[in-house]
Amino acid sequence: MDDQGTDLLYRRIAADISSLIEEGALRPGDRLPSVRRTSRDRRVSVGTVLAAYLSLEKEGFVEARPKSGHFVRRKPDRYESPAPHRRARLKVVPARVSVSTGVAALMYSLRDPSVLPLGSAVLAPELLPIRALNRTLAIAARDASGSNYVPPPGPSALRHQLARRALTWGLALDEDDFVTTVGATEAMHLCFRALTKPGDTVVVHSPMYFGVLQLLEELGLRVIEIPTHPDRGMDLDALKDVLKKAPVRACVAIPNFDNPLGSRMSDEAKERMVRLLAQHDVPLIEDDVYGDMSFDGSRPRPAKAFDRDGRVLLCSSVSKTLAAGYRVGWVVPGRYRALIERMQFSQTVATPTLPQLAVAEYLAGGGYDRHLRSLRTKLRLQVQHFREAIALAFPRGTSISAPQGGFVLWVEMPREIDALAMQAEALRRGVAIAPGPIFSARQRYTNAIRISCGIPWSSRVEEAIAMLGELAHEQMNARASAK
Amino acid sequence: MDDQGTDLLYRRIAADISSLIEEGALRPGDRLPSVRRTSRDRRVSVGTVLAAYLSLEKEGFVEARPKSGHFVRRKPDRYESPAPHRRARLKVVPARVSVSTGVAALMYSLRDPSVLPLGSAVLAPELLPIRALNRTLAIAARDASGSNYVPPPGPSALRHQLARRALTWGLALDEDDFVTTVGATEAMHLCFRALTKPGDTVVVHSPMYFGVLQLLEELGLRVIEIPTHPDRGMDLDALKDVLKKAPVRACVAIPNFDNPLGSRMSDEAKERMVRLLAQHDVPLIEDDVYGDMSFDGSRPRPAKAFDRDGRVLLCSSVSKTLAAGYRVGWVVPGRYRALIERMQFSQTVATPTLPQLAVAEYLAGGGYDRHLRSLRTKLRLQVQHFREAIALAFPRGTSISAPQGGFVLWVEMPREIDALAMQAEALRRGVAIAPGPIFSARQRYTNAIRISCGIPWSSRVEEAIAMLGELAHEQMNARASAK
Repeated sequence: MDDQGTDLLYRRIAADISSLIEEGALRPGDRLPSVRRTSRDRRVSVGTVLAAYLSLEKEGFVEARPKSGHFVRRKPDRYESPAPHRRARLKVVPARVSVSTGVAALMYSLRDPSVLPLGSAVLAPELLPIRALNRTLAIAARDASGSNYVPPPGPSALRHQLARRALTWGLALDEDDFVTTVGATEAMHLCFRALTKPGDTVVVHSPMYFGVLQLLEELGLRVIEIPTHPDRGMDLDALKDVLKKAPVRACVAIPNFDNPLGSRMSDEAKERMVRLLAQHDVPLIEDDVYGDMSFDGSRPRPAKAFDRDGRVLLCSSVSKTLAAGYRVGWVVPGRYRALIERMQFSQTVATPTLPQLAVAEYLAGGGYDRHLRSLRTKLRLQVQHFREAIALAFPRGTSISAPQGGFVLWVEMPREIDALAMQAEALRRGVAIAPGPIFSARQRYTNAIRISCGIPWSSRVEEAIAMLGELAHEQMNARASAK
Repeated sequence: MDDQGTDLLYRRIAADISSLIEEGALRPGDRLPSVRRTSRDRRVSVGTVLAAYLSLEKEGFVEARPKSGHFVRRKPDRYESPAPHRRARLKVVPARVSVSTGVAALMYSLRDPSVLPLGSAVLAPELLPIRALNRTLAIAARDASGSNYVPPPGPSALRHQLARRALTWGLALDEDDFVTTVGATEAMHLCFRALTKPGDTVVVHSPMYFGVLQLLEELGLRVIEIPTHPDRGMDLDALKDVLKKAPVRACVAIPNFDNPLGSRMSDEAKERMVRLLAQHDVPLIEDDVYGDMSFDGSRPRPAKAFDRDGRVLLCSSVSKTLAAGYRVGWVVPGRYRALIERMQFSQTVATPTLPQLAVAEYLAGGGYDRHLRSLRTKLRLQVQHFREAIALAFPRGTSISAPQGGFVLWVEMPREIDALAMQAEALRRGVAIAPGPIFSARQRYTNAIRISCGIPWSSRVEEAIAMLGELAHEQMNARASAK
């Protein structure tokens, strides 16, 4: 049998067994038939069965116990999603943001390559087509390309490919609708600079990705935080209330698989949000970096799809799906295009040329969709694996988000836990996490952490999750004995 | 004779003849000895003499007239440097900046590749080691490098090479003194964001590179402009006056071959400037992007060399010397390091990884100094060539800067000339120039333009300069006949 045949065979065996587990026919703790037995029963080589079992182990369905065989992993005994944040928490008074100390601590943790980076939403290189992308870059570098910068809106080759891809997002855009940027972060920064002045009020859903809050803090903006449902996203009744009561200059949302909750707004909700904001003449800055990473393979539309008058500014990048180190992003700035272009020209001149040409060429090549399909499956399984491990390791009363895409988990622990102390202690033990308070302008979520599942499961990750669970238990015990 | 021998020989012949011209032994309009005659006299092949004459032609010393032979080029009959800007112009009242319309026009002109870009200070690819640099990039791309970003302060490999090079600038710096950035532009932007708030006053020498003014305008800063001597740089007595009278938050200077005048401050002047500012507790943001490009081969020290207490923030990049499209720059932020790092993390996350690794590798390779030596000679000759052509083509009363490094010329025409109208008309004819008013917060210099000499001399450039001269003459004639 040729290699491809063996390959298909072991995958089929693994798929059969994982189905049995998912359907409950095989239950946690059950021992799988021995390798030899399965080899006999299915008439395949021992090697093929071993490959199947190894793959099931990698995907988190089973565990190998020395000298005993393979067992279905114990399902967590509690597995609660975070409760929707209560309306009662809504505060219409804009707050100054104060997250920079926590964010700086996170940044420092990223510098040390020996630290396990569960605090940053970046994928491990082995999950990315970085070799293919780098090869494309090497080819783009064969002539004198890259000697000069391409002024805003950036290289036509890349904008052309983005316009093509926009069809898969449910958007009909032209290459002239795009301005390329140094990642989605520069895109967001340009939007804030174009739309606001220090002291202005911006509305965000909460918890909100700390990078956004950090920008708002540095630009001297004030923030009103809208409660967010862990599955359905921003509470639009609360948004409506706020828009009536406060002078709002812009709204920030991550409608598709938001960071950190992983929620997904429905098309109806997106449409209502865009309409509400338009009624109050408030532009929407939309972050769609996780849009391509749904677990069910669908590609949800951005809120931009419901924009009637150019007031939605869509920001995204290839940082999550191809390479964060390329720093290639873009904004579809609608009616603010001229201003955004001019501001980019003055603040960074342009996005570096060659990484953009490489991304354009990679997107033109057609490998991107294949990569996405495989990536989505891997991420779904990885997130599931992390989720189970967290449920097992953390104290009773912990709830874990159930994202529908992306690769971060929001973990709310019992109230007495201090996430910042946990972050500091975890870092001393070589593991970085993102503490809850940096996801809130008012530094709420003191008992929550965000864990990135961007690193393939390994014994090192397993130990890290167990260690984090222990830290949480220790804090609870210390509180209990102090009473 | 081998190739290298021939190469040396024709260079020697060319050097001998250019010396005769420079010493005045051969005068404008003189005919060179015929190729055959020189071949006989110097006992070299006709090909070698032809190569020598061609090289003299390229360097602007001689011109070939069909069927007549080679003639020493006519020296311009007037060749005046701009007058030092008068102290009387000093205004201590801070001005709002308003340059963005003119800068936007310049940006739009850069988008059209058919336009001759005499308006932007960027070198043509043939003057840069872009092939070697791109090869280095392709090698850096062979492993998974670049999949992730390197958080501020940026890759150690690059900062290490910068610290090594800093010795050639007369500075003893450690790699930890550097933060890498998306070009010098992001570096400057970060400095302004770190040091100022909207409404604050910043001091600049004048004329000042429009990119700086554009940033100041967008950040809502006010500006006091200090007169600048076209050879010696910022008027320090005027600076002293201003510091006594106005609350100044920061000072911006380009002490080495400033853009647009090309002036060079002496070490004594730099030291005095740094001391004056320190006395008033005012940080200096120093732009040193032209520091490596002196015409006499020396490497002037940055003002940072005289910094005693970390209040000089040195910004630079490889955009002028290696590749503007790589967008690799840095800042030595002194005492503001932590703040600058944090702000970069929030505003662009990081500088793209692979271009930085390529630059590090290129600098480590040792080819940079060789490249600089050849570049300096080429630029000196190019600038001289442009200067002569401008002097010949432009109206009487035009003065032209005499830069000691860099590659831009500041051309002050008679008062009645409207540089903005000239820019618009030149663009219609396919040539971009930078108009004087964008080099001033108060939009002064209405009769000046900046011409970049970054493109090797060619008949197209020659025609462009002639056309610009005609435009100036036309404007003067129109004024005269309207009287």
